[in-house]
Amino acid sequence: MGKKYSNLVKNALGRTVPQEVNDQLQVPYMGVGKYKPDANRYGPKISSCSDFPLDGNKQVGSLKEALVKAGLKDGMTISTHHHFRNGDLLANQIFDIAKELGVKDLRWYPSASFPCHEHLIQYLEDGTIHHIEGSMNGPLGKFTSQGKMKGIGILRSHGGRYQSIQDGEVKIDIAVIGAACADSFGNANGLYGKSASGLLGFALADSQYADKVIVVTDNMIPFPCIPWQIQGNYVDYTVVTDKIGIPEKIVSGTTEITKSPDRLLLAEMTAKFCEITGIIHEGFSFQAGAGGTAGAVGEYFAETMRRLKIKGRFARGGSNKYLVKMLEEGLIEYILDGQTFDLDGVRSMAQNPGHVWTSPFTSYNYHGKGNFAGIVDVVILGATEVDVNYNANVVTHSDGMLLHGIGGWQNCLFSKTVILPIPLFRDRIPVILDEVTTICGPGELIDVIVTERGIAINPLRKDLLEKVKGSDLPIKTIQELKAEAEKICGKPARPQYEDEIVAVIKWVDGTIIDSVWKIKS
Amino acid sequence: MGKKYSNLVKNALGRTVPQEVNDQLQVPYMGVGKYKPDANRYGPKISSCSDFPLDGNKQVGSLKEALVKAGLKDGMTISTHHHFRNGDLLANQIFDIAKELGVKDLRWYPSASFPCHEHLIQYLEDGTIHHIEGSMNGPLGKFTSQGKMKGIGILRSHGGRYQSIQDGEVKIDIAVIGAACADSFGNANGLYGKSASGLLGFALADSQYADKVIVVTDNMIPFPCIPWQIQGNYVDYTVVTDKIGIPEKIVSGTTEITKSPDRLLLAEMTAKFCEITGIIHEGFSFQAGAGGTAGAVGEYFAETMRRLKIKGRFARGGSNKYLVKMLEEGLIEYILDGQTFDLDGVRSMAQNPGHVWTSPFTSYNYHGKGNFAGIVDVVILGATEVDVNYNANVVTHSDGMLLHGIGGWQNCLFSKTVILPIPLFRDRIPVILDEVTTICGPGELIDVIVTERGIAINPLRKDLLEKVKGSDLPIKTIQELKAEAEKICGKPARPQYEDEIVAVIKWVDGTIIDSVWKIKS
Repeated sequence: MGKKYSNLVKNALGRTVPQEVNDQLQVPYMGVGKYKPDANRYGPKISSCSDFPLDGNKQVGSLKEALVKAGLKDGMTISTHHHFRNGDLLANQIFDIAKELGVKDLRWYPSASFPCHEHLIQYLEDGTIHHIEGSMNGPLGKFTSQGKMKGIGILRSHGGRYQSIQDGEVKIDIAVIGAACADSFGNANGLYGKSASGLLGFALADSQYADKVIVVTDNMIPFPCIPWQIQGNYVDYTVVTDKIGIPEKIVSGTTEITKSPDRLLLAEMTAKFCEITGIIHEGFSFQAGAGGTAGAVGEYFAETMRRLKIKGRFARGGSNKYLVKMLEEGLIEYILDGQTFDLDGVRSMAQNPGHVWTSPFTSYNYHGKGNFAGIVDVVILGATEVDVNYNANVVTHSDGMLLHGIGGWQNCLFSKTVILPIPLFRDRIPVILDEVTTICGPGELIDVIVTERGIAINPLRKDLLEKVKGSDLPIKTIQELKAEAEKICGKPARPQYEDEIVAVIKWVDGTIIDSVWKIKS
Repeated sequence: MGKKYSNLVKNALGRTVPQEVNDQLQVPYMGVGKYKPDANRYGPKISSCSDFPLDGNKQVGSLKEALVKAGLKDGMTISTHHHFRNGDLLANQIFDIAKELGVKDLRWYPSASFPCHEHLIQYLEDGTIHHIEGSMNGPLGKFTSQGKMKGIGILRSHGGRYQSIQDGEVKIDIAVIGAACADSFGNANGLYGKSASGLLGFALADSQYADKVIVVTDNMIPFPCIPWQIQGNYVDYTVVTDKIGIPEKIVSGTTEITKSPDRLLLAEMTAKFCEITGIIHEGFSFQAGAGGTAGAVGEYFAETMRRLKIKGRFARGGSNKYLVKMLEEGLIEYILDGQTFDLDGVRSMAQNPGHVWTSPFTSYNYHGKGNFAGIVDVVILGATEVDVNYNANVVTHSDGMLLHGIGGWQNCLFSKTVILPIPLFRDRIPVILDEVTTICGPGELIDVIVTERGIAINPLRKDLLEKVKGSDLPIKTIQELKAEAEKICGKPARPQYEDEIVAVIKWVDGTIIDSVWKIKS
C-alpha cells in the first residue's frame, strides 16, 4: 500500500483525481446519475445456525475476547458507528487492544469521527492503523492534511458509506456496534439505558454485511431486546462492559439554537424565501440540520406554518427539542430521524409512534431503488465555500485544511430544493469563489444561496426565478454576491499544496469527485 | 425441464431422494447441522436511483402494466406471500395476466398456498405454470400427488424459504407483494386498511432479493407509510387496485379454539407435562399454533401461569385473541408474531408496543447467525404421523396424498423442547408407525409425544425422563403407544405409489430430507 497515485485524471468536473487509491482501482466522477455499475451487491458468507449457540446466548467475556474470536489480524477493516458522537468510548478501546495484540495496518472505517478520537493519532503514527475511511475531523483532519497518514483517506457521505458496503467496494472484516440496550443474542437498540443515543441506523450496513459483528453494551437485558434496531441474526458475539459512552457527550441535555444576529438573519431570509416561493405548503416536508443557521430555520418554518395554518407531512432530522415540539404540536405528522441530538429527541423516539427512525439505506443509499432524499421538498444545508457555478465544499476550509466530514450533505442534494444559507464571508475571507478548494457537490444540484447581502438562485431553477419576481426578496446573481464580498475583503489567497494527494472525496455513487492535497508546510 | 431424477440416492435418514430436481443439482440431507455451504449469500443486481423517479412516485396504472414493465417472460420465477390466506385475490390475477400475455413455464413461488388458489390448476394444466415451490395444499396437493404437475414440487419451511432466497438457491424474477397500506414509493405494511393482515414478514426476503418488486395495495396513502414493514427502497413499481383481498377470509373476526373433548384432553395433558417438568417457569417462552389442540394448549398454559403466579417473557404466534389477552393481562411481556390470525391480533399489533412483528429471517432462517427458534423454551406442534424413532410427518396423510405445507414446523423443531400432542389414531388409522410416509423432521429434534393414552419421551431427553419420575403422568415408550393403537385398529395399510417423484421436501438447510411419490391410480 502507500500513496501511489500515478495515472491522475481529470473527472467530469475538471478536478484532478487518482485512478487508484490504496491499491484499489477507482472510477472518476462522471456526472450526476451517469455511473451505473453493472454488478451485483456484495453477498456476505453464508452462516449456519449450527456454528452458533443454540440457546442464542452469544455473550463472551470481553471486547478483547470478542476481537480475538473474530480473528483480528493485520490489514483488516474495522468499522464503528458514530451514534455516541464525542462521547464514544469504544473506538479508542478497539485500537488499544489491537496495539496490545501487535496487530498492524488496520483500516478504520467509522461512520464519522469526533475530537475524542484524537487518541488514535498515536496508532496512525505507529502503523497500527494504516488509514481512515470516514470523516477526518479536527485533529485527525489536520494530521491527514499534513500528509502524515500512511494511506490515503477516503471520505464518503452517509449514503455513500452504505453504498460502498452494499456494493462490496469496502469489505468490513469486523464491525463493533455499541448499543445502549442489547440482549445476549445481539438484538440491540439505542433507546434505553445510560448510553442512550436514540437510534443505531449508521451501524445498519455494518451489521448486514460485515464478516464478523460484535455488539457491545452497558445495558444487557433478557431476550428479546425490543425494538431490535440491530438484528441479532447478523451478530456473532455480544459483550457487556461498564460504560460504552459518556452520556452528556452522546446527546446534549438540550439543544440551543444560534443567538447570532447574523445567522438568525440568514435563517429568517431562508424561511421568507420558502414562504414566497410556495415551498412551505400544506403537506410539505423539510430537512434542516441541528446546529447553527440550519437549526434556526426550523424555528422560522414553525412560525410561518402557525401563521399560515399549514401542516407539514414530515421533517427529517437529526432530531432535537425543536423538531419534537413541532411533532407534538401537530405542525408535522412525522419526524424521520437519521440521528438524535438531544434528550427530547431520545425521549420522543422511545415514546411517539410519529417519530420514526431511518437509516442511510432508506434515506440516502444512491444504489437503491430510489431513496427518501428526493421526496423531501426542501433541505437547508451549510457549506464552507461555494463557487460561481454553485459547486460547493463542506470538507476543507479555504486554507486547504481537511476539517469536516460529509455527513448526509451530498445525499440531501437530491431534495427538490436545496438551499445553502451562508455568510458572504467568514473571518474576512469570502465564501463565494471562482473555484472552491474541494468540490463535494456539483452545482447543478444546488438551487439557492442565501447570504446576508442577497439571495442567488441557480439559473437552472427558472421556476424559482419566476416565483420570486415582484417580491421584495434581495435577489442577485452569484457573480454579484462574489463581487460584493471581494469589494469588502479583497480577492482571497488560495492555499498552497504539495504535489501529493492525502484524501479523496467520493460522490454518492462511489466515483471520485475530488482530491484533497497535502498542505505546504 | 421435466421430472428427470436419475441418480436417486439414500440420504442420512435412509430416504430415497433425487440428486437433481427441475434441472437443478441438489444436496441430500446429511443430518442436523451437518451441511454447511461454503458460499456467499446472493447479491441482487446493484440499482441506481437515477433509474427511478426522483420524487419517489413509482406508481403505474395497473398490475398488468407493472408485470410488463418488470419484464414478465417465459420461465420466470414469480413470488407471492400468503398473508391474505384464503382471502388472497392477487396470485390468481397474476397468472390470469400471464395467461393473457401468453407467458409459459413460470415457477410459482408462494410462501404458502390456500384453497382459493385452486383457480391456478388450469394454468398448471396448460403450461402457464411449470411447477410450484411452496406448500401444495388441498386441491393443489391432490393435483401434485396425482403426478399432473409438469415439474417437481419443492416444499420448504418458512425459514427454508428465506434461506433458499438468501443463498441464491431460488432467484426470484418478480415478487408481487400485496399490502393493506402503502405509499407510492413502495413502503408498505399490513396494519391499516380494509385488507389488513397484521404483518408482511413472509414477503421480506422477496422484497430484499427479487430482481423486480411490485407492491399492490387498495389503500395508498401519502409518503411516508409508517411503519414500513416492507421498505420502498427495495420496490420497483407500486399499483393501486380496488381490492387485494377478501377481508373476512384474510383474518377471522375471532378465533375459537377446539371444543373437541379429545383435543382438550391432549392440551390439558401437555400443559400438565410442562408444569411438572418445570418448563413453565418464571420468564419462560412458548410457541403454540393457532388451531386445534395447539391453540387450546395456550389457554391451559394461561390457567397454569395464573395459578402459579408465573409470568412468561414472550410467546411466539400466529397471534389471536387468546395470546393478545395474555399480553394485555400481563401474563407475557411480548408477543413475537410471525403472522396474525384474527382481528384482535391485527388491532394489538397496530397499538401495543409489546406486540412485535418478526420475519422468517429473525425467527427461522437456519443460514443466519442463529435465529429465534432455539431461544423458545417449548413449542407445541402438530403432525400427521410419527414413527418409532420420533421422525415426524406434516405434509402427507397416511394414504400418501400431499395435503399440507410445512409452515414454520421444521424451524420450530430447534426449540428447547418440542412437544407433539396428537391422537393415537385418526379415522381408525394409527398415527404412530414403524416408518412415516414422509419425513419432514428428524426424530432427534422431537422430544415428547402426548397422546390420549400416554406420553412418550424421546430417550435422548434423559433430563425430561428424570423430571417425570414419581409423577402421575402416564409415561410410556413410543413402542408401547404404537402397540396400543395397533391392538385397536390393526396394522395400517401403506400407500401404493408409482415409481415417480412428484415433490421433494427440503430440510431447513436446503438439503432434501425426503421425496413425495406419485399416488398409484
